Amino acid sequence: MPKIVDHEERREHFIDAAIDVVVREGFERLTMRQIATEAGYSHGAISRYFPDKQSLLAAAFLRLNQKVDERITENVGGLRGLAALESTCRAVLPYADRRNTARVIIAFWDRIPHYSDLREVWEQNSNRWRARFVQHLEEARDDDELHADIDVAVTVNEISARNMGWIMLTVLLPDEVSDDNLDRGLAALLDRIRTSTLATSGS
Amino acid sequence: MPKIVDHEERREHFIDAAIDVVVREGFERLTMRQIATEAGYSHGAISRYFPDKQSLLAAAFLRLNQKVDERITENVGGLRGLAALESTCRAVLPYADRRNTARVIIAFWDRIPHYSDLREVWEQNSNRWRARFVQHLEEARDDDELHADIDVAVTVNEISARNMGWIMLTVLLPDEVSDDNLDRGLAALLDRIRTSTLATSGS
Repeated sequence: MPKIVDHEERREHFIDAAIDVVVREGFERLTMRQIATEAGYSHGAISRYFPDKQSLLAAAFLRLNQKVDERITENVGGLRGLAALESTCRAVLPYADRRNTARVIIAFWDRIPHYSDLREVWEQNSNRWRARFVQHLEEARDDDELHADIDVAVTVNEISARNMGWIMLTVLLPDEVSDDNLDRGLAALLDRIRTSTLATSGS
Repeated sequence: MPKIVDHEERREHFIDAAIDVVVREGFERLTMRQIATEAGYSHGAISRYFPDKQSLLAAAFLRLNQKVDERITENVGGLRGLAALESTCRAVLPYADRRNTARVIIAFWDRIPHYSDLREVWEQNSNRWRARFVQHLEEARDDDELHADIDVAVTVNEISARNMGWIMLTVLLPDEVSDDNLDRGLAALLDRIRTSTLATSGS
């Protein structure tokens, strides 16, 4: 009987190997051969699943984003409004055990403007996450948790920017950012959305 | 009489050419030959000034940071406290006429963990900018502009993170961010530092 190959499993194996290589070596000198070696396969084996490096990297970026998505879904559970918003941010912020992933994520971000495969993954994911922020801010408004002057569209950008910025800052100044720092910044943000005039509408 | 070469000027010329190539093509496929062509010189001419690509890129990153520094100094003038902090952020945030630079800056950020030359430039610059934030927050405290509960160290990180994050967001979702959006976000931040409980100290 011929050996049965679980193609989905092998594909995932190559994706994991790609992420491991990027974590360890960065993107700059990344080759398909290196990823194949990491995975314990020949270069030919990997090219049956991914025709080129870009398609493999797009799959790896998608995988990383899916992991964040799963964490968000798990964290949010049945919550709504500002509690759900807080849980979503907690699933995204670069706490100490996610620093390797943070490094990889910013490498992908940098390449998004140049590669259409990555851009597609990014646009789908960021649209979905931003829709979550909008939803939870609107729930907060319905539940009278949200300050009356909050402009939802501006606040979605503020939250997105600071989540991305904390990921960047944690990678570039690792000694300056602690988990406690992330917690306190987030608590202060939520406090301001609730009680103050963050991103007031109008001029 | 031999032709007199202004070495400093030629060095600057190569740096500008490197930045132009990165803006147009990205980092990925950047070569010294390409930069030499852009500058209108031979590969040999450029290598007399920069022994390798990393040293040229570090010089280009330094140049970009110096431009931001000059803009900060010009904006801040004789201001102090929260007015100086606002002017500093305005010099850094990715307003529409700085979007090309924003793209280049994030490409450098991504490479900082991997290249010691870039890391050195980054550390010097970020230390200087963070020292400015600390100084202006302390002036604000001395002038009774700052909410009593503000923790300066946490707030410096919050400001750094959101400045970096807005740069990232503007590059990756250019259609979602407007200059007005940047202004309103910054105004709201300052409003919160002044009157609310951003980054309260203690648990």
